[in-house]
Parts: sequence; structure tokens; C-alpha cells
Amino acid sequence: MTAIQELFAFDAATSALDQVMGRLHWDQETMMPEGAADQRAHEVAALEELLHTRRQDARIGDWLEAAEPRDETDAARLRLLRRDYLRAVRVPADLAAELARTASRGHGIWAKARAADDPAPFLPVLGHMLQLKRDMAQAIDPEADPYDVLIEDYEPGLTGAEIAELFDGMRPRLRALRDAVLGHEGKAPALAGRFTPEAQLALTREVARRFGYDFDRGRIDLAVHPFSSGSGSDVRITTRIDEADPFGCLYSTIHEVGHAAYEQHVSDALALTRLGQGVSMGVHESQSRIFENQLGRSRAFCGWLHGEMVRAFDLTAPADADAFYAAVNRVEPGSIRTESDEVQYNLHIMLRFDLERAMIRGELDVADIEEAWNARFEADFGHRVDRASNGMLQDVHWSAGLFGYFPTYSLGNVYAGCLHAALRADLPDLDDHLAQGDPSPATEWLADRVQRHGSVPEPRAVIEQATGAPVSEAPLLDYLEAKFGALYGL
Amino acid sequence: MTAIQELFAFDAATSALDQVMGRLHWDQETMMPEGAADQRAHEVAALEELLHTRRQDARIGDWLEAAEPRDETDAARLRLLRRDYLRAVRVPADLAAELARTASRGHGIWAKARAADDPAPFLPVLGHMLQLKRDMAQAIDPEADPYDVLIEDYEPGLTGAEIAELFDGMRPRLRALRDAVLGHEGKAPALAGRFTPEAQLALTREVARRFGYDFDRGRIDLAVHPFSSGSGSDVRITTRIDEADPFGCLYSTIHEVGHAAYEQHVSDALALTRLGQGVSMGVHESQSRIFENQLGRSRAFCGWLHGEMVRAFDLTAPADADAFYAAVNRVEPGSIRTESDEVQYNLHIMLRFDLERAMIRGELDVADIEEAWNARFEADFGHRVDRASNGMLQDVHWSAGLFGYFPTYSLGNVYAGCLHAALRADLPDLDDHLAQGDPSPATEWLADRVQRHGSVPEPRAVIEQATGAPVSEAPLLDYLEAKFGALYGL
Repeated sequence: MTAIQELFAFDAATSALDQVMGRLHWDQETMMPEGAADQRAHEVAALEELLHTRRQDARIGDWLEAAEPRDETDAARLRLLRRDYLRAVRVPADLAAELARTASRGHGIWAKARAADDPAPFLPVLGHMLQLKRDMAQAIDPEADPYDVLIEDYEPGLTGAEIAELFDGMRPRLRALRDAVLGHEGKAPALAGRFTPEAQLALTREVARRFGYDFDRGRIDLAVHPFSSGSGSDVRITTRIDEADPFGCLYSTIHEVGHAAYEQHVSDALALTRLGQGVSMGVHESQSRIFENQLGRSRAFCGWLHGEMVRAFDLTAPADADAFYAAVNRVEPGSIRTESDEVQYNLHIMLRFDLERAMIRGELDVADIEEAWNARFEADFGHRVDRASNGMLQDVHWSAGLFGYFPTYSLGNVYAGCLHAALRADLPDLDDHLAQGDPSPATEWLADRVQRHGSVPEPRAVIEQATGAPVSEAPLLDYLEAKFGALYGL
Repeated sequence: MTAIQELFAFDAATSALDQVMGRLHWDQETMMPEGAADQRAHEVAALEELLHTRRQDARIGDWLEAAEPRDETDAARLRLLRRDYLRAVRVPADLAAELARTASRGHGIWAKARAADDPAPFLPVLGHMLQLKRDMAQAIDPEADPYDVLIEDYEPGLTGAEIAELFDGMRPRLRALRDAVLGHEGKAPALAGRFTPEAQLALTREVARRFGYDFDRGRIDLAVHPFSSGSGSDVRITTRIDEADPFGCLYSTIHEVGHAAYEQHVSDALALTRLGQGVSMGVHESQSRIFENQLGRSRAFCGWLHGEMVRAFDLTAPADADAFYAAVNRVEPGSIRTESDEVQYNLHIMLRFDLERAMIRGELDVADIEEAWNARFEADFGHRVDRASNGMLQDVHWSAGLFGYFPTYSLGNVYAGCLHAALRADLPDLDDHLAQGDPSPATEWLADRVQRHGSVPEPRAVIEQATGAPVSEAPLLDYLEAKFGALYGL
């Protein structure tokens, strides 16, 4: 075998083992007996140790040196394998171990601090984690801005400065929209009906099917947190059921179907290779968000969904589709990111992005983080944080060292905005289909323009190739202002 | 770390990875989407390749050389790790690969031959497999009888000659019992009731619980073939449902609970080590058989079960517990091993044992196997084989190269006979408990005497330590003659 053949065979096996790890995670959240948790931790650790060793295997370096790509796809695969390899070998083993230990310890301390509404015990471990992540960035690329190095794990090809410029351009219009919407009088109508788990699951499965989820290569189960897991021919999603609120099950499923459809539609030729998965967190999120929001929460689709819900749940209120559409898109004041809506969500993200970037760059001390959070929150949201669990302690990410992850949520929304504008231009009668409960023209457009390419193009390139235009925040903001302006009569 | 510490850490990780492989197998048979089969094959192959490499890791040889055991448990662990290692490194890589290829090819050819009721196309690949297994035995131990070497994979510490002597001692009494029972007039009464899947599963789960299955460290799902999977804190079983015959679901589950209870009861101190699982196929089968037959098909337990089935299924026939007991233990002529009963089962096994041993030793040519099978079948069972799919093509084992596996089924029955005699002597009021649907005195006796020891003692030793007597076929035969003599008024 040639060097590139050996490298690609090694990559194929690693990709298959990554899938095995995904299966274990899925099992743990859905099927595993409760008493098996300790043993499972050992099983996962043994597999993770093997994968860790593989990622730094010195043969990869030799193969990369000798490998000659035959085409663009080979070149893309080599580019990603080289990036993975350099990131793996440049982080010293003791630093990697200390990062893992600190994340594990940090999670426990964070959970306690959140429960006690007291950031103080969390600050030392947060400070230690920040230093470790700075050390990691320094080890990987001593010349680069440390936050830029960390972003590469989630959204390669974008710098902190580029993201800051994008976000700074969004903030004024989002603040203004938020003020206008929340200044408006009137409350969205509540739902009334009988939302049995069986009926919720039946309708949710039908909606998943309509959004293109392939049950022959996936399955839906219940779990505490909804997620999508796996690539290629085995992409499973989970959902959860709240008998008082069927939207949780329905819309979290549409969101996860967006992630899953991306993985299911990657070209078969890329399956079980480094290229055979979604290219970045941001592009992944763009698929889940456009499924959930621009399609699933559109007026046209809500008209169809209202009819289905009347049938499935003996829904008595809202009585008409317009009121139902308003209920689906209600905007309310709140402090928690994960409960937020299309209007306010990005303000949550931008706050976190600015603070974590400043912390990593050493411009903000952990001792000052709560004050900085609360001041910024009041400026962006118009009300004060009442307690730390509704403020800087609400998210798990920092305890796990996931600096650079938050901005990908809003990048996903920005990308979704670009894609939505482009597909609407290509599909002038899309609303007619959505009104029949058929999003397939849009989901097929996304499968063809974005999803099938897997990780061959870089993240921003895949969006720009799909839309034929540079990435910009404008389409998202135009869409939000038009939608919520009409909804709230602004 | 000392050599033994390094070796044991390596073993712990390997044991954990073996469990991961078990999880994949369970998932494949119960949860995996249909369209994921090809991808799963790649995932399993990647993990198997890693495990294969680990088993031959040269460091194991060095560690074994330097390792100093601190106690009996260490010594047992070293003994098994040494045996595994020598078996792994002595089989050349190309022979191992050819064995895997031939098993895969052989399975397809066998399935077609069975469907066509024509052994001819299967004979060449069977002959090739026999030669490969002889080569394998020769590579592992050129001095030993090749069949004895192969047995070691399933029932270490027993030779073909010892098994032949044991089986030869059983055959006359089993043939005589079979003749007497089948010569008796009268037919076991049929079941009448409404056996819905929900009611079958509910009763089956209750019975599993009563036999000591720990649902906190396991779960029951449906699959095409019943099996038990996993060790320690994650031991899952499957069952299947036939709406016409609730005994399939009930007794296959009691059987699998026997296997699962063995794995669940191995001492926690041995978990995720080479010692943390059942010691051999034969001892494993002894647990499943004693659960299923000596306990589950006893008159006392059947009395309780009859009452439960009347309630669960509106059972109208058999009307009384004696007739129900007869139905549970009906003996009928047949040709298929897996559908056989306590009286005839071992005759099936002994036939296969003698034929496969002769084939491996070069005393029986594949061209003569069908004639040899059919002649021996008529002598043992009193009727002729009507077609090859009811004869030499009925079992998958030979196509997969599993020579030495068959005798462990009957060794399990022999061991179960020994254990049953000993526990009955220790528990004189066991029938009072069984009549209340409570097998726990027996299952706890087995957990304490057999199961908790895992693989520390050798297979025969664990039985002899539990019973205080040498392994013998006499208790099994005495039990069968007494039980079926009474049932059939012989």
C-alpha cells in the first residue's frame, strides 16, 4: 500500500471507532441500566485511551509527509487529518490529562455552585481551566491569538476578531427589535388540549418523517436531553416529553432532525472517513436552526401543524392558525439561554462570546466576571439578573473548558439566515408546500447544497458555495425584523 | 508500576473493550436500524482489529515473564492471561485471516445448502475449515491431540478422551429412557388461553425477577434469538414471543437468566478483569440448564406457574397442575436439536461430538459425514432423518469452525445434574419454596458456590468445589430417570 492508502485505511478505522464511541454515548442516555454507570465509565475510558493513542500515532506524521492527493477530496481529507494530528501531538500528555481532570472536577464544583447560587467556589477552578486552555493554545500555536486557536476545535477558519465584527454589527438591531417586541402589549395565547405522550410521539414521528428523517437509518428514543448521535447510516435522535407543553417534544425533534439529516445526507462516498460528517458546529447548527425556525416556525408550516394538533390532541386553543402561529413564536422576558426565542437568543450568545474571549485573552479576571455579566445582561436585555443560577452559572460550558464553542450557536443562526434567503429565492412556491406540511423542497435543497458535501469544503466556504454570496448577518436580521415586526404589528 | 501492575492495567482495559464489543452485538440484535448493517460491520471490524492486536501485544509476554503473583487470584489471572497470549501469538496472522474468511464464506454456503437440502456444495468448505482448524491446533500445540487443543477454547482442562468416556457411559441409559418414554401411549395436553405479547412479557419479567435477575444491572428486550450479553453491572438478555406458545418466551428467559445471573453474581472484585466472567461454556450452560430444567420445569415450580398462567392468560387448559407439569415436560419424536427436550437433548450432542472429533482427527472424511450422521441418528433416536436440513445441515456451528463447542452443552447438563443433587441435599425444603414461586434458596446457593468465583477456579474444579464430589454423569441420569419415569408411569 502507498502512504496515502495506509493513512486512509487508518483514518477509516478511526472513524469507525469514533462511531462506536457515539453508540456508547447514545446507549448511556437511552438504554443503559442505572446500575451500569460505573462500569460504563471504565468502558468509555478504555476506548477513549485507544482513540487518544491513535490520534497521536507517529505513523500519521510519516504518511502525511509522503501522501500524494489524487483529487480535491483527497486534499481536503489530508488537510483535516494534518490539522487533527498537529493538534493532538502538540498538546503535552500531562496538560491533556490535567485538562480532563479539571473538566471533571470543574463540572462537580459548577453544579454545586449553581445549586447554591454562589459563584465563589467555582471561580478558582474556572481560573485554573482558563490557564490550562491558554497553555493548550500556546502549545498548539505560540504565535496566534489563544482564543483563535481554541475556536478551531469548533469552527475552523474563523478568528475571534471576525466573529466580533459580525456580532457587533448585529447587536444594535437585535437590541432594538427586542425592545420593540417586549414593549408591545398583549400575551400570546396559551395551548389547551390533551397532550398524551403517545399522541405527542406519534405526531412528532410524523413531523420528523416529513422533514426527511430516514427511520431506516435512525431511530427516535426518549432521553433527559434531546440530542443527535452518529453519522452515515446510523444517526439516532432523542426527544423528551412534557405533558403540559407539546412544543418541547415537537420543536426539539425538528431541531435534532436538522442535525441528523445533515449526517444522514453526507455522500456515501465519504462515509467512515474524516470527511464523512458535518463540517463544523456552526454549519451543523445552521441546519438544525433552519429546520426548527425558518421552516418549522414559519406561518405556512404552522397552519398545517395547527390542523394536525387539533386532530392529535383535541386542541381547543388557540382556535385559529394565526393565533397558533403567535403562540409558537411567543417572545417573553427571561434570563436563561436555553429557554430563549429567535429574537433574544443571539444576545445571550454575544454576551458569552465577549466575556469568554476577554477571559482567555487575560483582559477580564474571573473575580470580575459576575459583575461584567450582570452589567452587560442589563444593557442587552433590559432587566437585571436576579441570581447567579440565572446568570453566569446557568451554562455548563465553561466548567468543561469549552471556550470557543458558544459563538457557533449564533454563527449557525447567521448561516441559517443566509441559506434561508437563498433557498427562498430558488423556491418561490415553498410556502405552498409548507402549508401542506411538506418541507421537502427546502430540506432537499439543503441536502444538495450543504449536507452531501460533508467536511470537504471549509465551514464558511460551504455556506458561500450554497448561497453564492459572502456570509453576512443581514439576511438573518432582515428575516427576524420582518417576521416579528409582522407578528407584533411593529 | 511493576510488571504485574502494568499487565493487570492492560488486562482491565482489554476486558472493558470486550464489554464494548458485547454492547455492539446487543445493539445490533435489538436496537440498530436496519439500514445500518453495513456500517456496523465496519465498526465491529475496526474494534475487532484493535482487540486482535492487543491480544498479541509483545509486552504481554514480557510482563508475564516478570510478573509475581501475590495470591491465588493473581495466580489464576496470570494463568489465563498466559493461555490467551500463547494461543494468540502461536496462530500465524495469515492462518487467522483465512479462518475468519472461511467462516464468513462458509456461513453463506451452509445457509444456501440447508435451504436447498443438499450437503454437496457445503462439503468442500467444510473440508477446508477442518484443515484450517487442524493447522491451528498444530500451531498452538504440535504435540497434543488436535481436538483437545480446540476444546480449550470452550472448556479448558478437559480432553476429548475424557469427554468420550463420560458420554459413552451416558448413552445406554439415555437410549433406554428415550425408548421407554416414547413407547408410552398418550399425548401431553395442549395449552388453551389468550397469550398476548403484553401478558407474556409481564409474566416473564416477574419470573426473571424471581430467579434473581437484577434489573438495575440489566434489561430484557426482544430479539430474533434469545441471548445473554455482557458481564458485571451490565448484563442484558433478550427473548422472543410466539403468541401461540408462551413457553418459548418463559423458558428461554429462565434459561438466559441462568446465564445472566452467573455474570451478575461474579464478585465485584473481579469485575473488568480476565477473571470477571463465567469460566467456561460448560459451566455457563450448567447455570442456564439448572435454572430452566431442574428448577423451572420441576413439579413444585410448575404448580406455582400454572396458577400464574391461569391468571395471566385466562388459561383454560390444562385444567390442573399435574397436567400442566406434563405439558411443560412433554417428550416427542423429532430431529432438531434446538427443539429437543431433557431426555433426548444429550443424544443429539453426543452424536455431533463423536462425528466432529473423528473429522478433526482425520478418521472421518467429509464425503462420508452424511451417511455417518444418518446411521448414528437412527441408532440413537429410533427413526430416520428425512432430509439434510433435519440432519447434518441443521446447525450453524461447523460452518463457523466451532469444533469443540458442541460437547459443552452436555457437559453443562452433567454439571447441572451434579449441582442439583448437591443443592437438594443442602436444601431439603426447596420444593416448599418453589411451590411458592420462590427459587431463591437454589439460586443463592448457586451464586455462592459457583457464580461469585468467576474464572478463578478451572471449570471442573468449580463444580467439584461446589458439590464436594467428582464430576459424574450419574446424578443427571438418576434425575432424568426418576423424573420421566414418574411422569410417564414407567
